[in-house]
Amino acid sequence: MTPISRITRADMAPIALGGAFLGTGGGGDPFIGRLMAEQAIDATGPVPVLDVAALDDDALVVPVAMMGAPTVMLEKLPRGDEATCALRALEAVLGRKADAIFCIEAGGLNSTIPIAVAAAAGLPIVDGDGMGRAFPELQMVSMTMFGIHACPMAMADEKGNALVLNAIDNLSTERFARVVTVEMGGAALIAFYPMTGRQAKQSVLRGSLSLIHGIGRIIAGEQAANRNPADRLARDLNGMRLFEGRVTDVNRRTEGGFARGQARLDGLDRHAGCRLTLKFQNEFLVAEDETGAPLALTPDLICLLDLETGQPITTEQMAYGFRVIVSGMPCDPKWRSAQGLQLAGPGYSGYDHRYTPVEALTRQKHTIDMEDQA
Amino acid sequence: MTPISRITRADMAPIALGGAFLGTGGGGDPFIGRLMAEQAIDATGPVPVLDVAALDDDALVVPVAMMGAPTVMLEKLPRGDEATCALRALEAVLGRKADAIFCIEAGGLNSTIPIAVAAAAGLPIVDGDGMGRAFPELQMVSMTMFGIHACPMAMADEKGNALVLNAIDNLSTERFARVVTVEMGGAALIAFYPMTGRQAKQSVLRGSLSLIHGIGRIIAGEQAANRNPADRLARDLNGMRLFEGRVTDVNRRTEGGFARGQARLDGLDRHAGCRLTLKFQNEFLVAEDETGAPLALTPDLICLLDLETGQPITTEQMAYGFRVIVSGMPCDPKWRSAQGLQLAGPGYSGYDHRYTPVEALTRQKHTIDMEDQA
Repeated sequence: MTPISRITRADMAPIALGGAFLGTGGGGDPFIGRLMAEQAIDATGPVPVLDVAALDDDALVVPVAMMGAPTVMLEKLPRGDEATCALRALEAVLGRKADAIFCIEAGGLNSTIPIAVAAAAGLPIVDGDGMGRAFPELQMVSMTMFGIHACPMAMADEKGNALVLNAIDNLSTERFARVVTVEMGGAALIAFYPMTGRQAKQSVLRGSLSLIHGIGRIIAGEQAANRNPADRLARDLNGMRLFEGRVTDVNRRTEGGFARGQARLDGLDRHAGCRLTLKFQNEFLVAEDETGAPLALTPDLICLLDLETGQPITTEQMAYGFRVIVSGMPCDPKWRSAQGLQLAGPGYSGYDHRYTPVEALTRQKHTIDMEDQA
Repeated sequence: MTPISRITRADMAPIALGGAFLGTGGGGDPFIGRLMAEQAIDATGPVPVLDVAALDDDALVVPVAMMGAPTVMLEKLPRGDEATCALRALEAVLGRKADAIFCIEAGGLNSTIPIAVAAAAGLPIVDGDGMGRAFPELQMVSMTMFGIHACPMAMADEKGNALVLNAIDNLSTERFARVVTVEMGGAALIAFYPMTGRQAKQSVLRGSLSLIHGIGRIIAGEQAANRNPADRLARDLNGMRLFEGRVTDVNRRTEGGFARGQARLDGLDRHAGCRLTLKFQNEFLVAEDETGAPLALTPDLICLLDLETGQPITTEQMAYGFRVIVSGMPCDPKWRSAQGLQLAGPGYSGYDHRYTPVEALTRQKHTIDMEDQA
């Protein structure tokens, strides 16, 4: 994708669209963050985008994000300055100002809110993120693999409650922050993983904002040409179409601060007679066929597009009758390491499957289908 | 009670005993805190006790405490320096050192742990507290009535997790701190309600350490003379014996970070044939007779002594077969104000009774009993 060097108002629409796709169903609808970013850019001008390599080694890079269940975020809108409050609280503890803002995940609300914060704070934003997609828990970032601590972490809500957490490790940080998020009403604005430019260069996934922006432009372009973006995205992202079907059942609950559940899809067209089950915890984490065999497994990406409009579909929007295309995309290679799979593989989220790359699963499935036909 | 001017090792036994009595069944067994304080006093010498009036107006007074369910505190012992860690974290946020330590409640573990912290930090302790007894929730202190904020509040656990909370009010502080306490394993060490000497003079209940110490000496003296301390304590504290009975049922659960439940007592001697129900949330909050009529209601004190040994009995120790004397004591007059009852009356804890002072309830009961006999 073409690198983006600054974010203008006009860039926010494709970024929100690309963020909804890479959100893999989670991360919240980027729309609210898009509005916040547009408003902030109107007031202060475009946000410069920094390549990770351009960071000073001693620069202070701070990810900001919204934490919580997307089902809650739909109804509990941020007041507007909570993320900046969290950033200021973290800066106060660190005794210095941030030099650049960072997206913790490349998807959902958290691909747009940091842009609003960067604009409001007059800071550049780094072209990278910690996941290369969205994940449900905050320790699931590449920085964890490089020993970078999530704490000190600042949290703020729309009522004015705030706190600074110093947990002993990133998993403990997730657990404490999650119960506080629930007590904050299910969603909180956070600033965490403060890191130096040197640490960012080692640990983060690069080019994520350019990628999100590029994906958004592809989706918009294909939509304008009346084509579903699924094929073009699969080609450009080394992914594959896994299934076309109609949502026939959604079992969703907001539990422990997450939107958890599963959805059943009945096949359409060449998948008629087949079934797909999608399991999610904020994000789509497992896609299984009617025999229970996996078609795609976290940390690989499972992305849904509306069959007619080509719009990305999030877990909290999904409802009976939606006709969708399910695509699988390989995750960043960092996630396929032993450490990456321990952090974000199917086992961590309680699914029985042993991780196999989506491209291998699709090859297996194809071979089996061929044998069945023979 | 005679004012105490410093706390030596020898004072810790009566303080732990008096603290167990004023704990009104809650606040945790003071024994662990007694051992910690004795150890600290051995190392650093006696702890000076300051009358509230002797505080400099600008002195920084910091209450430290253990927060959580007493049932958990029985098994999850503090490592030893968590309270000091919490104190240091709070001092760091405030940008200054504490000048004196303060007991948030006059009962249970929290009447002994602050002495250990004061000894370890080389600070005096104030002769006062925020409750004049123990209460289950942290906003239930006289400081709340005077608009003093519980935040910033520091929390620490034995694993090394810590945080600093800035909630918008004292009830929100309780709610956030409670979920964090549960996540910390059910018990946490805290430093909060930082206040000036001037604020302390306005708001705190005075003479509490001297009172605890005096009560402990009375209990020990009566025990030595083979008398149950109940009568002497009732006389000295303007209280009354409410019931003698045998515990026949205890329903106790650790829920939402509290030890909640109720106990049934069958009457002995002159109460033979009668029944008493004690309802508790960490502390005993309601005592009802067999008709459901109240004999004593929070914020008045409901204190249990073992019928034979005269030892105070806490809610978490209470078990089938215990033979006890139940006494009722009037609370500090501050609690009987409209604001005090809103904070700590039976309605706040979800009990239907309208608050009536224990001395009026006993008078009513006495009159009804007389009419029954006539």
